Amino acid sequence: MDRPQSWQARADAWSLYGFTDLPSVHRRGAVVLTHGEGPYVVDVDGNRYLDANSGLWNMVAGFDHKGLAEAAKAQYDRFPGYHALFGRMSDQTVMLSEKLVEVSPFDRGKVFYTNSGSEANDTMVKMLWFLHASEGNPQRRKILTRSNAYHGVTAVSASMTGKPYNSAFGLPLPGFIHLTCPHYWGFGEAGESEEQFTQRLARELEDTILREGADTIAGFFGEPVMGAGGVIPPSSGYFQAVLPILRRHAIPMIADEVICGFGRTGNTWGCQTYGFMPDAIISSKNLTAGLFPMGAVILGPDLADRVQAAAEKFEEFPHGFTASGHPVGCAIALKAIDVVMNEGLAENVRRLAPRMEAGLRAIMQRCTHIGELRGVGFMWALEAVQDRASKTPFDGALSVSERIANACTDVGLICRPLGQSIVLCPPFILTEAQMDEMLDKLEQGLVRVFAELP
Amino acid sequence: MDRPQSWQARADAWSLYGFTDLPSVHRRGAVVLTHGEGPYVVDVDGNRYLDANSGLWNMVAGFDHKGLAEAAKAQYDRFPGYHALFGRMSDQTVMLSEKLVEVSPFDRGKVFYTNSGSEANDTMVKMLWFLHASEGNPQRRKILTRSNAYHGVTAVSASMTGKPYNSAFGLPLPGFIHLTCPHYWGFGEAGESEEQFTQRLARELEDTILREGADTIAGFFGEPVMGAGGVIPPSSGYFQAVLPILRRHAIPMIADEVICGFGRTGNTWGCQTYGFMPDAIISSKNLTAGLFPMGAVILGPDLADRVQAAAEKFEEFPHGFTASGHPVGCAIALKAIDVVMNEGLAENVRRLAPRMEAGLRAIMQRCTHIGELRGVGFMWALEAVQDRASKTPFDGALSVSERIANACTDVGLICRPLGQSIVLCPPFILTEAQMDEMLDKLEQGLVRVFAELP
Repeated sequence: MDRPQSWQARADAWSLYGFTDLPSVHRRGAVVLTHGEGPYVVDVDGNRYLDANSGLWNMVAGFDHKGLAEAAKAQYDRFPGYHALFGRMSDQTVMLSEKLVEVSPFDRGKVFYTNSGSEANDTMVKMLWFLHASEGNPQRRKILTRSNAYHGVTAVSASMTGKPYNSAFGLPLPGFIHLTCPHYWGFGEAGESEEQFTQRLARELEDTILREGADTIAGFFGEPVMGAGGVIPPSSGYFQAVLPILRRHAIPMIADEVICGFGRTGNTWGCQTYGFMPDAIISSKNLTAGLFPMGAVILGPDLADRVQAAAEKFEEFPHGFTASGHPVGCAIALKAIDVVMNEGLAENVRRLAPRMEAGLRAIMQRCTHIGELRGVGFMWALEAVQDRASKTPFDGALSVSERIANACTDVGLICRPLGQSIVLCPPFILTEAQMDEMLDKLEQGLVRVFAELP
Repeated sequence: MDRPQSWQARADAWSLYGFTDLPSVHRRGAVVLTHGEGPYVVDVDGNRYLDANSGLWNMVAGFDHKGLAEAAKAQYDRFPGYHALFGRMSDQTVMLSEKLVEVSPFDRGKVFYTNSGSEANDTMVKMLWFLHASEGNPQRRKILTRSNAYHGVTAVSASMTGKPYNSAFGLPLPGFIHLTCPHYWGFGEAGESEEQFTQRLARELEDTILREGADTIAGFFGEPVMGAGGVIPPSSGYFQAVLPILRRHAIPMIADEVICGFGRTGNTWGCQTYGFMPDAIISSKNLTAGLFPMGAVILGPDLADRVQAAAEKFEEFPHGFTASGHPVGCAIALKAIDVVMNEGLAENVRRLAPRMEAGLRAIMQRCTHIGELRGVGFMWALEAVQDRASKTPFDGALSVSERIANACTDVGLICRPLGQSIVLCPPFILTEAQMDEMLDKLEQGLVRVFAELP
């Protein structure tokens, strides 16, 4: 085999890049990273970047947290791998399940492990199909999610994801229904108040249930704040309007807390920030602070009892992954939960979130091409527009958000282009000085790109 | 929340057990493990078990391999987490992709990472759908697999899995077609030679393609030796009969090497043991010797070129997992490949496989209730039967294989009941003495259970 020499050429030669703008990577070369320091990552050429993307939302304790690495290393010395199937599991797995129920909003429940948020959502769909079939309702199979939702990339979790690129795979599969995205700025109609918008979406949900038949619907999944849709907090009163409708039709409500969970919105769970109680929680990412691939389905009391009853009837729940409940992942998660909740990380999010919001608002006042600032806690998006008053977007061919992200990378800041927005979701360990550096570099990127535009 | 005290009660309270015989776990209690020593695992009560299941096929270097733990720990100190998306990735990821192509049967290719074999198969299906749609054949969506195949548990990889329990989820989804399992002992007809059986299966494939329309079929997936189907080597000449038919109809052939890959059959790849060249390989499990959740799709030259061309046309391959190409997983995999291929593990499989086969054959001669011994390398199954000559199985209600596995656990051996068979797939580090211990304890379990049966 031919062996190219440079890191960039080696990356190109052997990688099928995922979620990568290929024109950009061909022009600029891949960024090959060797190590990290706090919220910074460093590439093979010694360039240093403040990663305001926290890796991919998940490296909330930064890229060299000593305590987390020690927890991982100790478990590698103790018991470096096992599954959680056939009635066997590690002691770490038992302890993490207990801890997850303890820190969940539920007063009791049951936990099932996967290796990712995608697998956890896919597993939850299978659990609902298994449950409804066992209860005599095998026709309850349709899944309700929202446009711009992101629930993963397995064929089923991608079918739940309401993003246009999934059509390239011939997805969604039949039976996955996408309701309107609860983004008032983006989808509110002329003259419609935010409260009226929320009520319209609630009516759409009720109409959809009646049209499809409540007895054909397996469940409703929603992120408290949409993440990869472009950081979209729900419109005012959204979950309070939606939940009674779901309850009335006996449709389970699943909170996808892969991004919001463990501190991102300023509370342990996004459902706490928005004041609602789901029937189950999907967790991943922050769960291990990005140090290990892990997802978890946390069932609240009602679903725990019903899924357990269905499993008893079948004599097993015939599902599980080889690395489900891996002892190293569980040991890391136990430490990560402690670090986020008890070692000041969640507290730092609450303390610095107002500084982040104020800094971004000041940038918006100086950049007329920002149409909306939206977010909560340590997750914010700036929406680029050609014209703020009319909300006219830039021509898609200009790739404005990609250009802004590339311009930011050039000055040492990693942020994420999503549609026409720029997303910032920094690690929870950010200091005030690092926060100001992030805001300053972001503004440099914005100013440069907006000055170049026609 | 109420907190039970014993490990078993805590496991019960907070776990939804996956792939667990619930009557057994209720009667016997969960086995909660704390650590391992070589091929042994030890539970909270100090009981020690020779794990002839290698965890779940994957802990091939045992449960306390120093070199692997050191590789993991060094990377946790260096760079404890990143993704491989947006044109960024770690140096470890670049190196592993290069290594995977180097050790693959392909002379060039491209690698895409996932967190599990389930995700890798699910990803491969999405890749095929993406590819065929891009090439103007969006109707090429059906997937061919075999009855008793195991390809995972996401809704799509479970649809590829040909096991009866999937009906409890309302699976398979439409468009997943299961051909006859290539198990001559189990499915050969009276008077049919093994060669005739293979030819019948080849005709069935051709007939299926003609019936469905070659232009509706996305790909064919097969394990070189079926694993969770109960260790089923292909019938004589199977892949040599099947591959020309697939080639003639331009149907990609994907080898699911999650279990066979990296040494289990005595060679690096199962397709080498059975002398065929697939278009892509799915890898997981042994890839990290079980120390980290990781899967990989390795595309051979033709599919690498075509999927890359489809991605260029779309300007991205819009797929990827947060922990895709995690630097710690990649560092561990680099070491695991070296340990298996260069530190004597694969060599040990080749050296001791004849001893394993001979020992199991001697047991079969003494136990008339064993109907078939089948396997290769370090993966073998004994099929329990009421009557060997007529191949009459035991009454399913007797749960014979579960009872044998439980009896073995009682004497300190973990093996796996699968249907009416007992599967043994020990770690590659087994010594001769440990091999003999495994065989002795297995026979104790068999003798006890067969003596109890009516």
